[in-house]
Amino acid sequence: MKASLIERGFCFGENGLTTIEAPSLRPIYWRDGVVALLDQTRLPEEEVWLELRDYRDVVEAIREMRIRGAPAIGVAGAYAVAMAASEVSEHAQDDFIGELEEAAKDIEEARPTGANLAWAVRRMMAVARNGDRPQTAVEALIAEAARIQDEDEEANRAIGRFGAELIRQGSGVLTHCNAGALATGGYGTALGVIKTAWAGGKIKQVYATETRALFQGSRLTAWELQRESISVTVLPDSAAGQLMRRGRVQAVIVGADRIAANGDVANKIGTYSLAVLAKENRLPFYVAAPTSTIDMSLPSGESIPIEERTPTEVTHAGTTRVVPERTDVFNFAFDVTPHKYVAAIVTEAGVARPPYDRQLAGAVQASGG
Amino acid sequence: MKASLIERGFCFGENGLTTIEAPSLRPIYWRDGVVALLDQTRLPEEEVWLELRDYRDVVEAIREMRIRGAPAIGVAGAYAVAMAASEVSEHAQDDFIGELEEAAKDIEEARPTGANLAWAVRRMMAVARNGDRPQTAVEALIAEAARIQDEDEEANRAIGRFGAELIRQGSGVLTHCNAGALATGGYGTALGVIKTAWAGGKIKQVYATETRALFQGSRLTAWELQRESISVTVLPDSAAGQLMRRGRVQAVIVGADRIAANGDVANKIGTYSLAVLAKENRLPFYVAAPTSTIDMSLPSGESIPIEERTPTEVTHAGTTRVVPERTDVFNFAFDVTPHKYVAAIVTEAGVARPPYDRQLAGAVQASGG
Repeated sequence: MKASLIERGFCFGENGLTTIEAPSLRPIYWRDGVVALLDQTRLPEEEVWLELRDYRDVVEAIREMRIRGAPAIGVAGAYAVAMAASEVSEHAQDDFIGELEEAAKDIEEARPTGANLAWAVRRMMAVARNGDRPQTAVEALIAEAARIQDEDEEANRAIGRFGAELIRQGSGVLTHCNAGALATGGYGTALGVIKTAWAGGKIKQVYATETRALFQGSRLTAWELQRESISVTVLPDSAAGQLMRRGRVQAVIVGADRIAANGDVANKIGTYSLAVLAKENRLPFYVAAPTSTIDMSLPSGESIPIEERTPTEVTHAGTTRVVPERTDVFNFAFDVTPHKYVAAIVTEAGVARPPYDRQLAGAVQASGG
Repeated sequence: MKASLIERGFCFGENGLTTIEAPSLRPIYWRDGVVALLDQTRLPEEEVWLELRDYRDVVEAIREMRIRGAPAIGVAGAYAVAMAASEVSEHAQDDFIGELEEAAKDIEEARPTGANLAWAVRRMMAVARNGDRPQTAVEALIAEAARIQDEDEEANRAIGRFGAELIRQGSGVLTHCNAGALATGGYGTALGVIKTAWAGGKIKQVYATETRALFQGSRLTAWELQRESISVTVLPDSAAGQLMRRGRVQAVIVGADRIAANGDVANKIGTYSLAVLAKENRLPFYVAAPTSTIDMSLPSGESIPIEERTPTEVTHAGTTRVVPERTDVFNFAFDVTPHKYVAAIVTEAGVARPPYDRQLAGAVQASGG
């Protein structure tokens, strides 16, 4: 991967690379054909920005989880399509579309479970096909990718407002993995709700499960919340049940990678366990996600493709081997939580309640999806 | 800690240190005033035996979890009392008992949650007080400690036979942490059941949760089962629910650190979550433990002391920091599973079923406790 390191600095303006002056954290920026991406595999120890000039490097960064979280992957995929278009913009229109379709296929296949990547690529390809000439299409694609990112952050701020209404005064709120600014175009879904509710004085304490195998909860959520001075406690995934039983948690809120039409939710492995534990402890279990995460083509969660990742994520903790050699490992990156465990799904269109079928369809329609 | 390393070799006879020719794995051996202890913090990468000559070093090894598992800690504590007795055996009888009581207090406080340590120390002190002279008491104490270990292994073999009856042909069996030979005098409790059922051809596959924070499942259980050619798959703690939902698990069986009179079970953090997930998936949740783990003085699990360990176990995975600095961490080593989730408690006296009150009292009585 061609990459240069730009250390320390979220606001890219500081490095003279972009004029974006967003005060909030974003995991990815675009400027003049270059994607700058915060390498999330290096957090919390180092804040390293990768500068990518080839869409294949963006695909690789998605595969390696240097950027992760379904909505953020969607944004990265959109920029990747714009980069690929720029690469073949000297071709004739037909060849241009043909080549771009090839690249789009590669991009779309970078990771299988999240809905937003395919959604974003589809949206980008519609723009590409709409153009008269490759050169103008490239401009339109760059603008569209930026729009996807901006709209995602906007959606998250709406999700934050709707979701914060669900949180009771003085709550302990537990979240899993990272569904924050780092996982989205900006601001975050589950963490968007937490940030808004925290700002409104409703949250007493946030609990972040560390989220094995890759520690997105302890590495990323704790880092992101600390950055905003939100009080966070990290715990092993296995301790969440005990914490609920001790009365320290009043609500559980997570993001989603793909939501089926009936409200079944694919999300980071461990989500299902938290939903069951919440039910057993009579706590509400909420899901926060933009409508771009809803896949109306799937009637239920049973047919959501679940990514199985390399055993080394489990056999090693950091550089330390924790599983004997030649041991079989189960490393599915996601699980599916049946909709019966979900008290509400918060999108930018509002709060959907069970039965989800009609309400999710309405939310998708309302947002023009 | 005065310790020399004796690498590679379970059967101590190979190193000329002892004449014990036990074919099975034991975590601790005694010979001529020396305790040899397999350093479980180094597994699975290295098999290092520590040679300890001072009871204070045994206390330290227990605290640092070089030996762990409630019954194994009990055995180590018993040897430590014998070592302490040997150290003060030149004193007059009254001084001898006084000094030994001091040492016994230190030993008993090495770790708080498991019942077996206090139980073993109590049993040892009864023998000490029964003696006429310190010199003969020391001999009796050494014999008593060895008897505690031998009886524990024998109890586990009985637990294995009783427990195997509960496992249906062709089962996937999930276990948590390590309740094996490494955690006991020998053979194991939950793993004793698994070993016996495996030998009887009843188990198709064992699933071992990795057991954060210290990976006893992936480091120790996988290692111990592989050594006996039992087919084992390791998974992150958070994946257990999904595995159950997929129908891969037919029973869950764990050990215990302390069992209250009503059947509430203190065991490694995450046990409660597995019990709830088993209930939700209509799977039996079994506990296997010797009667020395049952604490009839506690009416319920609410008053079991739960050890909170250093945050660094959670902030670091191996040598890699996975939590930002100055982040609050929740690191309780154990949780309490209410008896309503427990389908059966298997002891050397047989299979206890709910309601537990009378059946556990009977089991303790039957075993002379």
